[in-house]
Amino acid sequence: MSTTSKEIHLASRPNGMPTKENFKLAEVEVPALADGQVLIRNHWMSVDPYMRGRMMDVQSYVPPFQIGEVLSGGAIGEVVESKNPDVKVGTWLQHMNGWREFAVSDGLFDQVIDPNIAPPQAFLGVLGMPGLTAYAGLLRVGELKDGDEVFVTAASGAVGSVVAQIAKAKGHHVAGSAGSDDKCKWLEDVAGIDKAINYKNYGSQGELEAAMAEACPRGIDVYFENVGGDHLVSALNLMNTFGRMPLCGMISRYNDTSPQPGPWNLIMAVGKSLKLQGFIVTNHLDIAEDFMRDVPAWIKDGKIKWEETVFEGVENAPDAFMGLFSGANFGKMLVKLS
Amino acid sequence: MSTTSKEIHLASRPNGMPTKENFKLAEVEVPALADGQVLIRNHWMSVDPYMRGRMMDVQSYVPPFQIGEVLSGGAIGEVVESKNPDVKVGTWLQHMNGWREFAVSDGLFDQVIDPNIAPPQAFLGVLGMPGLTAYAGLLRVGELKDGDEVFVTAASGAVGSVVAQIAKAKGHHVAGSAGSDDKCKWLEDVAGIDKAINYKNYGSQGELEAAMAEACPRGIDVYFENVGGDHLVSALNLMNTFGRMPLCGMISRYNDTSPQPGPWNLIMAVGKSLKLQGFIVTNHLDIAEDFMRDVPAWIKDGKIKWEETVFEGVENAPDAFMGLFSGANFGKMLVKLS
Repeated sequence: MSTTSKEIHLASRPNGMPTKENFKLAEVEVPALADGQVLIRNHWMSVDPYMRGRMMDVQSYVPPFQIGEVLSGGAIGEVVESKNPDVKVGTWLQHMNGWREFAVSDGLFDQVIDPNIAPPQAFLGVLGMPGLTAYAGLLRVGELKDGDEVFVTAASGAVGSVVAQIAKAKGHHVAGSAGSDDKCKWLEDVAGIDKAINYKNYGSQGELEAAMAEACPRGIDVYFENVGGDHLVSALNLMNTFGRMPLCGMISRYNDTSPQPGPWNLIMAVGKSLKLQGFIVTNHLDIAEDFMRDVPAWIKDGKIKWEETVFEGVENAPDAFMGLFSGANFGKMLVKLS
Repeated sequence: MSTTSKEIHLASRPNGMPTKENFKLAEVEVPALADGQVLIRNHWMSVDPYMRGRMMDVQSYVPPFQIGEVLSGGAIGEVVESKNPDVKVGTWLQHMNGWREFAVSDGLFDQVIDPNIAPPQAFLGVLGMPGLTAYAGLLRVGELKDGDEVFVTAASGAVGSVVAQIAKAKGHHVAGSAGSDDKCKWLEDVAGIDKAINYKNYGSQGELEAAMAEACPRGIDVYFENVGGDHLVSALNLMNTFGRMPLCGMISRYNDTSPQPGPWNLIMAVGKSLKLQGFIVTNHLDIAEDFMRDVPAWIKDGKIKWEETVFEGVENAPDAFMGLFSGANFGKMLVKLS
């Protein structure tokens, strides 16, 4: 008996904002398992902004996706067939063979998850890569220390919302920006941050900066960067001496079709002795153990909450992915596959 | 008997490149010493790029110069009269009351120098603030480690030339840029770096980047930033993963009259996990002792050499200062006052 799996291929490389034409739905026969392999039925898959970079034909920290081939990314599934004596049928795995309904895996880099700790899709968000990104970026790269004032961009997103709530759990003044009044309300009323601003309400960099200044009356010590552009210019002006700026992403720039000016005031970093530090989560897997101790405890104590935006069916994964760039997600963007 | 002293006042704040009209030569009576004070006859004074920032009316890590008042900055002088029992006439001091022929000081922050170690003006350069800036910036902020490939901008300048030679003394591949063929020849033949490029030979950012790439065939691990602009864009493209970019200054930007685009490719810092870190030398005075152990030893071993460009007379200090921005200096820019 053979299994068919629907999956999404890269049809062409995006120029600017990705469009439906860049993706192609395919239906494939899943090959028979070799010894040591398992067949995973994916229940959830993740779409993440970093995938935009892999759609370009440039070498980066992860190799580019290839045209005509299936995309990949984080997914959660259940083992439905196993030729690996160490992995039983029924095991839940987090793995990197997303964008498809069924995945054949040798299991080497897959991680067994316990769906009793949290709903399985949480391992693609708050308890997964975005959560660890937030934890490592804020605490290690951002060197968060007592008394720091924190500003988080894309603060209702999968990473930003965890950054903001970790900082609150540790007793900091936390402000952040998001792209709708609903998101801001959630940040203040549910996530409990001190001030959320809807950046879409401000027509210029100067207006945004004034709002950020009001949200952080004692300046900013740690600025968590997911966005770039006017946010970064404003932050450089508002940073306190010895401030730290973990650079996690710059989503406002990912779909540029021509070079856009960088922050004209980067010179501020000299006089204020600022540290801007880019990072990727895989540099920091060594603190995953601390992360899996702290974050579940904060969740249990009601200090970390999260939202999900769910698209249904692998055929809608491109829409979910494209929605990341228009802010269609509220919290973690997910695709439910079964 | 009273002493008269010629000194330079700030006549007006520069808009863009400073001009002679921004400065005014004044002749003042030096007041009689109070108890605890000393009278210093300045033999040398320093002009440094950072002073451009102090000419603007903005708060920064040092307060702005005031219109109508004497400028200040590093100077070396000899005590010619003393009402301080701890400081004898004939003592050589490094202090911050430059831009004047005679200075009255309470001596609190002055540093006694030993003119037998090196010519006294070296304490304004390789053995002074620029040297310590280089030492702290490369070794602490730049976290120089074995095997790192180093690129230094303004590599024949007061700071850059020390950065380049410390890196060479520690066995690294070192390349750098300067603004004339003579400076490049000195860097390769006298300072002994591996490759110096004259950035004025390149008409575009892309050409500069190609030259930098050729000078650093294994990429750049530590990029020492004195310049900004196209150099920074190029470096971001050429950095190796986990590279460090100590931000010491961005002289290409200091006289901008309107905001100029920052590096459009700052996003590179994320994927490559780069650290850009601004610093000022006064953050790092705690390693002055290490500095005063290592650098004199390297000088003695012939591993650190330096050039000076000397203007004569306090009345020519504005020309010396303005010359920093056109690259009129070869090595440390100094004004000899007596």
